[in-house]
Amino acid sequence: MKISKDQIAESNQKEQNNHRVQFEFLEDQLSRKNVHVAELIQKLADFQVAIPSWALGAGGTRFGRFSYYGEPSNLTQKIEDVGIIHMLTRTAGAISLHIPWDVPEDYTAVKELARSLDLKFDAVNSNTFQDQKGSRESYKFGSLSNVSQAVREQAIAHNKEVIGIGEKLGSKSLTVWLADGSSFPGQNNFQTALHHTENSLKEIYKSLPIDWKMFIEYKPYEPNFYSTVIQDWGTSFMLANACGEKAYSLVDLGHHLPNTNIEQIVSTLMWKGKLGGFHFNDSKFGDDDLTVGSIKPYALFLIFNELVYGMENNPQNPDLAWMIDASHNIKDPIEDLIQSLEAIQEAYAKALLVDQVALKLAQQENDVTQCQEILQGAYRTDVRSLIQMARVQKGGAIHPLKAYRELAIRKKLIEERGKHTIATGL
Amino acid sequence: MKISKDQIAESNQKEQNNHRVQFEFLEDQLSRKNVHVAELIQKLADFQVAIPSWALGAGGTRFGRFSYYGEPSNLTQKIEDVGIIHMLTRTAGAISLHIPWDVPEDYTAVKELARSLDLKFDAVNSNTFQDQKGSRESYKFGSLSNVSQAVREQAIAHNKEVIGIGEKLGSKSLTVWLADGSSFPGQNNFQTALHHTENSLKEIYKSLPIDWKMFIEYKPYEPNFYSTVIQDWGTSFMLANACGEKAYSLVDLGHHLPNTNIEQIVSTLMWKGKLGGFHFNDSKFGDDDLTVGSIKPYALFLIFNELVYGMENNPQNPDLAWMIDASHNIKDPIEDLIQSLEAIQEAYAKALLVDQVALKLAQQENDVTQCQEILQGAYRTDVRSLIQMARVQKGGAIHPLKAYRELAIRKKLIEERGKHTIATGL
Amino acid sequence: MKISKDQIAESNQKEQNNHRVQFEFLEDQLSRKNVHVAELIQKLADFQVAIPSWALGAGGTRFGRFSYYGEPSNLTQKIEDVGIIHMLTRTAGAISLHIPWDVPEDYTAVKELARSLDLKFDAVNSNTFQDQKGSRESYKFGSLSNVSQAVREQAIAHNKEVIGIGEKLGSKSLTVWLADGSSFPGQNNFQTALHHTENSLKEIYKSLPIDWKMFIEYKPYEPNFYSTVIQDWGTSFMLANACGEKAYSLVDLGHHLPNTNIEQIVSTLMWKGKLGGFHFNDSKFGDDDLTVGSIKPYALFLIFNELVYGMENNPQNPDLAWMIDASHNIKDPIEDLIQSLEAIQEAYAKALLVDQVALKLAQQENDVTQCQEILQGAYRTDVRSLIQMARVQKGGAIHPLKAYRELAIRKKLIEERGKHTIATGL
Amino acid sequence: MKISKDQIAESNQKEQNNHRVQFEFLEDQLSRKNVHVAELIQKLADFQVAIPSWALGAGGTRFGRFSYYGEPSNLTQKIEDVGIIHMLTRTAGAISLHIPWDVPEDYTAVKELARSLDLKFDAVNSNTFQDQKGSRESYKFGSLSNVSQAVREQAIAHNKEVIGIGEKLGSKSLTVWLADGSSFPGQNNFQTALHHTENSLKEIYKSLPIDWKMFIEYKPYEPNFYSTVIQDWGTSFMLANACGEKAYSLVDLGHHLPNTNIEQIVSTLMWKGKLGGFHFNDSKFGDDDLTVGSIKPYALFLIFNELVYGMENNPQNPDLAWMIDASHNIKDPIEDLIQSLEAIQEAYAKALLVDQVALKLAQQENDVTQCQEILQGAYRTDVRSLIQMARVQKGGAIHPLKAYRELAIRKKLIEERGKHTIATGL
Repeated sequence: MKISKDQIAESNQKEQNNHRVQFEFLEDQLSRKNVHVAELIQKLADFQVAIPSWALGAGGTRFGRFSYYGEPSNLTQKIEDVGIIHMLTRTAGAISLHIPWDVPEDYTAVKELARSLDLKFDAVNSNTFQDQKGSRESYKFGSLSNVSQAVREQAIAHNKEVIGIGEKLGSKSLTVWLADGSSFPGQNNFQTALHHTENSLKEIYKSLPIDWKMFIEYKPYEPNFYSTVIQDWGTSFMLANACGEKAYSLVDLGHHLPNTNIEQIVSTLMWKGKLGGFHFNDSKFGDDDLTVGSIKPYALFLIFNELVYGMENNPQNPDLAWMIDASHNIKDPIEDLIQSLEAIQEAYAKALLVDQVALKLAQQENDVTQCQEILQGAYRTDVRSLIQMARVQKGGAIHPLKAYRELAIRKKLIEERGKHTIATGL
Repeated sequence: MKISKDQIAESNQKEQNNHRVQFEFLEDQLSRKNVHVAELIQKLADFQVAIPSWALGAGGTRFGRFSYYGEPSNLTQKIEDVGIIHMLTRTAGAISLHIPWDVPEDYTAVKELARSLDLKFDAVNSNTFQDQKGSRESYKFGSLSNVSQAVREQAIAHNKEVIGIGEKLGSKSLTVWLADGSSFPGQNNFQTALHHTENSLKEIYKSLPIDWKMFIEYKPYEPNFYSTVIQDWGTSFMLANACGEKAYSLVDLGHHLPNTNIEQIVSTLMWKGKLGGFHFNDSKFGDDDLTVGSIKPYALFLIFNELVYGMENNPQNPDLAWMIDASHNIKDPIEDLIQSLEAIQEAYAKALLVDQVALKLAQQENDVTQCQEILQGAYRTDVRSLIQMARVQKGGAIHPLKAYRELAIRKKLIEERGKHTIATGL
Repeated sequence: MKISKDQIAESNQKEQNNHRVQFEFLEDQLSRKNVHVAELIQKLADFQVAIPSWALGAGGTRFGRFSYYGEPSNLTQKIEDVGIIHMLTRTAGAISLHIPWDVPEDYTAVKELARSLDLKFDAVNSNTFQDQKGSRESYKFGSLSNVSQAVREQAIAHNKEVIGIGEKLGSKSLTVWLADGSSFPGQNNFQTALHHTENSLKEIYKSLPIDWKMFIEYKPYEPNFYSTVIQDWGTSFMLANACGEKAYSLVDLGHHLPNTNIEQIVSTLMWKGKLGGFHFNDSKFGDDDLTVGSIKPYALFLIFNELVYGMENNPQNPDLAWMIDASHNIKDPIEDLIQSLEAIQEAYAKALLVDQVALKLAQQENDVTQCQEILQGAYRTDVRSLIQMARVQKGGAIHPLKAYRELAIRKKLIEERGKHTIATGL
Repeated sequence: MKISKDQIAESNQKEQNNHRVQFEFLEDQLSRKNVHVAELIQKLADFQVAIPSWALGAGGTRFGRFSYYGEPSNLTQKIEDVGIIHMLTRTAGAISLHIPWDVPEDYTAVKELARSLDLKFDAVNSNTFQDQKGSRESYKFGSLSNVSQAVREQAIAHNKEVIGIGEKLGSKSLTVWLADGSSFPGQNNFQTALHHTENSLKEIYKSLPIDWKMFIEYKPYEPNFYSTVIQDWGTSFMLANACGEKAYSLVDLGHHLPNTNIEQIVSTLMWKGKLGGFHFNDSKFGDDDLTVGSIKPYALFLIFNELVYGMENNPQNPDLAWMIDASHNIKDPIEDLIQSLEAIQEAYAKALLVDQVALKLAQQENDVTQCQEILQGAYRTDVRSLIQMARVQKGGAIHPLKAYRELAIRKKLIEERGKHTIATGL
């Protein structure tokens, strides 16, 4: 299942007039404010977000899961789904594999497929939060932090194996998310668990190829409900420093306690040159893994405001690995991802509109009212036609979601794959 | 200190061209979607929000307070400040008095001043959370819920007195916010405290004039840190039902536990015909009392979406009393209030743009993606020129904040009033 | 698998001396304070908590599930497990079935088994949050609140069927927990969803036998992550009132927003005569479903303080249905439940020690320090020997957990059932 | 106002018999478990907590303040109040001064007074969150992080001055709590603010005497409501590392987001040798500053469990500075502090009872049930007679609170000082 350029062109044709009117108005408005519109479009067009291989199937909760029809049942089909999204949006130019759910059988074929769809292989993800069939040791009581050396070694070996798989595909980074922790006071010795984790990460780090990065994710709770070994950015940062210069913190928007100021964390990590990757999603209560921008779009904008600032002012920080990490429980996963990409581009575009010079001046004068005016002025701008233009210039659809529906892609996927397929790993 | 129509007209002149271009573009865009733009502008122009008399001075925290220069030091000056805001925005056509901080000395003069500024007297607010000099009983351990009958009677009498003051001014409602509660387990008998509160409220209710309403506010914590007698909407609703049909719940945006879905509460209360008033502000952590729309503008939009729905579909619910209840700790209070009014109008305008027919259809088909598209489509629209037009048609400024600064109002207030005035009650 | 009285007696023999010394000391101490120890023991002995049928197998999270060996794979084995717990603790004299996971095949046999183990059938629980194989309609977008009449009717019919099953077993109440809600703004019309829910509940209520009660549970989020139709006690209370006098609210400790004062809710509901049931568990973050008393034992005590007060002072409130509703992800479920029962008895015993007369006096004098002293005085008392005595008098084990381990019950269950059984419904 | 040894002895006399019976029972019980009771009592007796000079007067909230009668109105009286508390409890052997509220006028006299009451001068606290009369620069927009160099220099100079005052008194540490932050998005440049803060702290650090420590406090919000420069332990730890080996993090129990696992933070900091000080209080919602142990006593125990572990296993971490930092809004401050000290001693005693050897073994075997049993076994023990014994051995009262009331101290303080005194700084 592939979408052709002609199909996109056809879809765009009937939207073209409206789009042009809106874009020209916005271009004119922005130009009056001395915004370099073409530059801005280029930045938007260059911005690419990875889709994780597990995101193409319906997610679920501990209370159950409702399948979506026509889900991809193997890696090839998952890549094809990302291809569909990328063809429509031109923003999803990478896929992030989850091992062992998505170990390629034929590397050449998989790479060839990805190349044909203009997709790169972004960070590879290890999994030590579930037991795989036939595994010798169990992760029930932790992996890299486990009191048992045998378990830790199995988990370390798995991460090394994941690096090996990533190397064959052209990935350049490993993301480590640890579920390790405890559900009851006393269950863990915090210091021992942290010590083991540090040593295990260092061990994995040793196997990291010279041009790779290691991303250390943090999360306050779930699936453990009393403590998590890497509970916050401070712990992740401390561990990354202990490992070395190729180790970085990774921020997932849903992995914070209520009311956390995430943009400040982003800013601190970039200042220290230690922000490596970013997982997008949205949430109201916990790690809800909802569509990006569906709950707190202004917070997303504020985060992008820090990201844009950091990208322009923090050469000490490397290029970031961007990924969507959401769970699609009740929407068509492809539609959900298209909405997420749209929200990311919107927040990025608005952050690019912030007048940094004026903001700095207002900050220096403690003109709080004016600081707010500047951010809100950028945020209140309707940037949809700008994003559309960035897409169109790269061959994407003006309205990806509309195009997806008009082309009846899901219907065709169901015809091709059947209704009751289930994605590996779900 | 008053702003004249000429000053506003002059200020608008240089903004006129830009404004017209933007408005005409938006009008055209909206008309294509069959939006009745003139009707929408009328609704925006009709929407009036009360300013409370305590909002014109700088607020503070328990750690201290930093004064703002030129604060109003008496009721006359407070009304003048609201007059300035209303002249600029044409959205602040009412003032809400706080007793005993703002008891008028000369009712005729006060009413005449308000009339000359086109201001009404909205809900009057009682204060039983502080002791006034010379008061016989103390509210240290509660007011309407106090174990002491003498204290309860004093608090009831105060509320009746506030009603009397309101009647002289033309107010039509009483807002009761109770700080009553406890800071330590065991301090209060919950049932006794609730029982006393219900009886006290009923007693006050008896003195309510036939055409008045009583608003019962709720809040989970602060200034008490273990329990608050009216801790949530459920308790407020229960008490309002116990009092009678003129008693209603009042929602203050900052008075909720972390992550509360406030819009759902709004919707439930309107369905039951029991939402009486609304206090606007914004917050990240608790009852932060920040500028409306400065932290979670999308949540504000979603709340307005329910308000608009209720205003159109719930004839069982009366017209609402709208008020801004924020604390201006570090901004010029007048600027802060102008920004709040702008944010309220923006959220209202966007909510009015929601295509209710399409939304209902999408909901009936469980087309979750489409439901989101409809809300986001309205929210992403840049409605600033629409709000400007609503203001301009009523004689307000295109850019109230700019006009306020260009006219150097604060400077003139300082000249008039001096630097180190302090507002009564602060 | 059954535990005999002889086994318990043998286990108790070696603990007997220590137990006696401790009990006699405590009895003496309490008697000096005019506590009627025998009465207190009787209350503890009478207190019985239901075990839900789904609690005997290992739980899990959305990230996976780690099996526990020897899990019960059918209803008979589940009842046997409850029998083991009850034999050891004499506190778990009831089982609460979850339909359709545990529909009896042979009612006579099931009732006979329960009777032989001294177990009653407590509230029956319906399930409309998952789709069952072969069901015509799907609950993906809600059940009693669904926009589709066909879905609502299926969910109503299911609840009626559950009542029928309960009648055959001797249950006297139905617990309705609704997962219904939405994960995205706009997905649901709040008022429509609430209206449908009210009508559906009324429809079920009509089928309720004359001597039954209906319990309406509430929960702020999960598995839906934006809104839940019955989000709080206020909504549950409103719906219970709408249904009639046999409808009550049910409080589950984990179903609240961060920092909620649950004991106050308990107190309000009992005052109004509308608290029907109680689900015990503990949590640090959300609905973590941890062992009762493992995280916030003082909060549990404060809740019991209100329950004890209500049981003594609120004749308007019926006897409560007590149940443990936890998820046993990493402990042996039987051990976990024994620990939960111990924590419940402890909190109850301490609450019974609160000197109500002295507390009332201190409250009337606003002697906050003394109020705290009274509660803490009760809480700091070591009541373990009291609970043991209550157990021993009814034939239970002094140390149920020790006895369970010494008797190697789990080992025998594994021999009997095999390692890799999975409980129905998990 | 001073309490004499005779008064205490007299008070103890009538409690003596009960106390002996309770202690002997507990001693016997613990000895059977091989607890070295005498050693444990010694540790409890050695444990001394500082009282801050601002804690002796009634606190308040932003909504107002209710005075307590007989408050100390100067430093001498504050020291006397601490002397009263220490005489009764033998646990409050230090006072922590807040500058500029409590600058001594006569150092010799102040030191002599303290010596006569057996009090040391613990950490000195600077104040850059309020403007002092006549100060040149304002802290309205921050102090050590301010965009203005002049403000930063004033704040640095103030801290140096505080060090100087501390040196004259024999203090050995400086506590820096910064209110610095922002209330609106955009107000602050996070990186600039953090950079300035780091530089300012380094500047202060340079003036630190060789045998002093600097404690860096963190807090997520209040009095700023959008961001705080030192928002969490990670930021504090990062800054302490940047300053040098005499700089440490300070943990205040109330300075965390909802649901934070504080004991894990304590453990991590001690492992890294960077926990310098500890501020005790309790809270349900935010920085409520309630009596220690009044809301979450089990959490306090878990924190002490980590502190005890660290004190025994982390030689890399220095001795800790213990202080109570609560606000006494509705209780007699002296009574409140006595209750806090009792709760601290209780948590410490229970933590000392944890069988570390057994716990480690259970952890190594992932025997989660047993880990919980061990912690709960220690926690459920009634240790009151143990704490009493530790007090009695040092000349304190068996029941400090009772003695305080029987001796009618507050009445005497009112006679001495008058009713309506107000403590400096409040």
